[in-house]
Amino acid sequence: MNTNLTTDRPTFVTHLECSMTGERYEADQLHNLSRVGRPLLVRYDLDGVKAAVSRDTIAARETDLWRWRELLPVRKSASIVSLGEIETPLVPIPASGGANVLVKDEGRLPTGSFKARGLVMAVAMARELGVTRIAMPTNGNAGAALAAYASRCGIETIILAPQETPEINIREMALQGARVYRVNGQIDDCGAIVGKGAAEGRWFDFSTLKEPYRIEGKKTMGLELAAQMGWELPDAIFYPTGGGTGLIGMWKAFDELEKLGWIGAKRPRMFAVQATGCAPIVRAFEKGVDHAERWENAATVAAGIRVPRAVGDFLILRAVRESGGTALAVDDDAILAAVDACAKRDGVLICPEGGATLAAYRKALGEGLVDAEERVILFNCATGLKYPMPAAGEMLDRNAEIDLASL
Amino acid sequence: MNTNLTTDRPTFVTHLECSMTGERYEADQLHNLSRVGRPLLVRYDLDGVKAAVSRDTIAARETDLWRWRELLPVRKSASIVSLGEIETPLVPIPASGGANVLVKDEGRLPTGSFKARGLVMAVAMARELGVTRIAMPTNGNAGAALAAYASRCGIETIILAPQETPEINIREMALQGARVYRVNGQIDDCGAIVGKGAAEGRWFDFSTLKEPYRIEGKKTMGLELAAQMGWELPDAIFYPTGGGTGLIGMWKAFDELEKLGWIGAKRPRMFAVQATGCAPIVRAFEKGVDHAERWENAATVAAGIRVPRAVGDFLILRAVRESGGTALAVDDDAILAAVDACAKRDGVLICPEGGATLAAYRKALGEGLVDAEERVILFNCATGLKYPMPAAGEMLDRNAEIDLASL
Ligand SMILES: Cc1ncc(COP(=O)(O)O)c(C=O)c1O
Ligand SMILES: Cc1ncc(COP(=O)(O)O)c(C=O)c1O
Repeated sequence: MNTNLTTDRPTFVTHLECSMTGERYEADQLHNLSRVGRPLLVRYDLDGVKAAVSRDTIAARETDLWRWRELLPVRKSASIVSLGEIETPLVPIPASGGANVLVKDEGRLPTGSFKARGLVMAVAMARELGVTRIAMPTNGNAGAALAAYASRCGIETIILAPQETPEINIREMALQGARVYRVNGQIDDCGAIVGKGAAEGRWFDFSTLKEPYRIEGKKTMGLELAAQMGWELPDAIFYPTGGGTGLIGMWKAFDELEKLGWIGAKRPRMFAVQATGCAPIVRAFEKGVDHAERWENAATVAAGIRVPRAVGDFLILRAVRESGGTALAVDDDAILAAVDACAKRDGVLICPEGGATLAAYRKALGEGLVDAEERVILFNCATGLKYPMPAAGEMLDRNAEIDLASL
Repeated sequence: MNTNLTTDRPTFVTHLECSMTGERYEADQLHNLSRVGRPLLVRYDLDGVKAAVSRDTIAARETDLWRWRELLPVRKSASIVSLGEIETPLVPIPASGGANVLVKDEGRLPTGSFKARGLVMAVAMARELGVTRIAMPTNGNAGAALAAYASRCGIETIILAPQETPEINIREMALQGARVYRVNGQIDDCGAIVGKGAAEGRWFDFSTLKEPYRIEGKKTMGLELAAQMGWELPDAIFYPTGGGTGLIGMWKAFDELEKLGWIGAKRPRMFAVQATGCAPIVRAFEKGVDHAERWENAATVAAGIRVPRAVGDFLILRAVRESGGTALAVDDDAILAAVDACAKRDGVLICPEGGATLAAYRKALGEGLVDAEERVILFNCATGLKYPMPAAGEMLDRNAEIDLASL
């Protein structure tokens, strides 16, 4: 059986730190944003980690997310609420992507999306710190992951989703025990209501980056990728960017891995991918500014990246720039064409957000931002099964003489 | 990177054998049923396997399905069309199942179901043996897996599904490049059309157990389970039984493992679970006969086990009886209640077929067929996301003064 979930863990968290000002905050307390309203980052005693474990120690463990425990904030293994956070596979898509493109298929995680990584961590910490009631705004996948983990340990959840959230996501959340409401607005409208209730002390606010531990869970995408690729990072990563937690998390992971001496200084170029119907980060990147203005009238089929405003905007932009990458937007037609090509030709049903990364990769190839010889990772952050698909199928009459040659 | 997919494999297949008469058939040829119309089983030189690999050899490999290559029929690694067939996790469901119950969560496989195991194998063999056009009857999941693997390597697929197959499955198959037709009948009506076309030489027939390699893929459920449980099989396995490939495959796996000396003589009691609306195997089990009559007017929400007639009926019944297990049926209300309880209380969204195993386990507990102290595995063969879920959600007006206390 998996000892990652039972072994008591030395913990190396030293403190938390404001991502903007560097101001120091205590570990082992409930936190939302820093005093200046920006995300908090968890800091570790990396020398201690280095003395305690090596790449070989990690390699000898079960491959799930908890193999990385020395780099994670959970102190007591009893706090963990696990649904089987397996290492997600890297799947080649030679026909639609090319010979050097791998899809990191995050749809294999519990609740069918990478949100499980962030939420398994945040829920464990909330539980460790005594939270009993959580609220969250979501475009669908984060709420589903929260509902699953929270219900499993008896934490109450209230979830607010934009009106246009696909029915399947609403149903999934409710079935998994959350109280779900739709709001006639965008995710930040939902977030405003959650924030108000939190200020009144009605619940704990679990919005992206507004509590410090989801990012630590998302960080494991970067840790895993490094291990899976033999501690040699790819040349480029295409990441569908909404709140940006994953991109920020991976960037933090690479930094920690280098400090441990487990990887060198080489970094992938980070491509923050958005939809042309909601591209605040791309606009800010192009203007050369550090913060992104709200995107009005956001609209795209890729619901997970329909995020008009991101509290971690400057962290996303910083990582993209430092890496030598780019922020780029693709339109819904290109997104759906990419989903279709990948399913039809490579047999991989990616989600629209994943389709956006494939479309963006093709665009970047065309513009010479990436070379066909370079090793590239595309993030497919959810299973395509959670999204509407085009209608199909014709009816045959079993009692009729069917013209088999026509089938 | 994963060397399971690149290492050239010694192969230990000696021949195929009729599961009814024992008649011998050549390996490395295309086969459907035996002369007497029954499934063929692949036989291996197990002494050769034993000399070549040990439990430790297997343990040192990547954990995916291809770690078992010496016990699989594919001769050339180049024939393999992989979508990332990871080892599926065992997830405890303490609230809805109890302390000793683990769900084998097969929804994590490519295309969201365990059908990927059978189809990845059958497609590799079809490719190795030169097949270019395949037809298959399906209740949804098998067709989706076939479409994905076949499209990926350019094999044409024609899929026939019963009229009532959920729309999501039809769409998934079509999106993954199959030509899909609905038929106003049950899966055996679809199978009859496929059989007719195969007889006319229009395509190769990929129906459950009508080609010999899907069962070899399904067998890996048993191999994996043994390794995951430290080579000590559970006391009971609850398996949602349609065509029965998985149950037959696991039983074959345990036999092979014992011959290798990797497990002892202890076997789990096998519980074949069906729905009261379609329970041909249960009826035959209760009558004490070896073959099951067709179930008329089959109807259940658990589409994957809506199989009125199974060509491997005698193999299912034999395994259940030899194991000291039982065949038992549960009704749709119990199935849906189990799905609901597991989602709400344990955060695991199982499919209705998985719900049937949980309902059957509870029933078996009540009837004293299994003890709460026994270690039990329930098979959840697909992700619950592929199935209709109950409606939910209430609308809030972002512009109104929302009574937060009411949320
Ligand atoms: C499928 C999918 N992709 C991408 C994203 C964006 O993730 P992040 O908040 O890390 O930018 C989301 C967020 O909801 C998502 O569900
Ligand atoms: C989810 C699910 N469970 C169970 C079954 C039954 O599998 P078997 O043919 O091995 O009995 C199926 C087959 O379609 C299925 O899709």
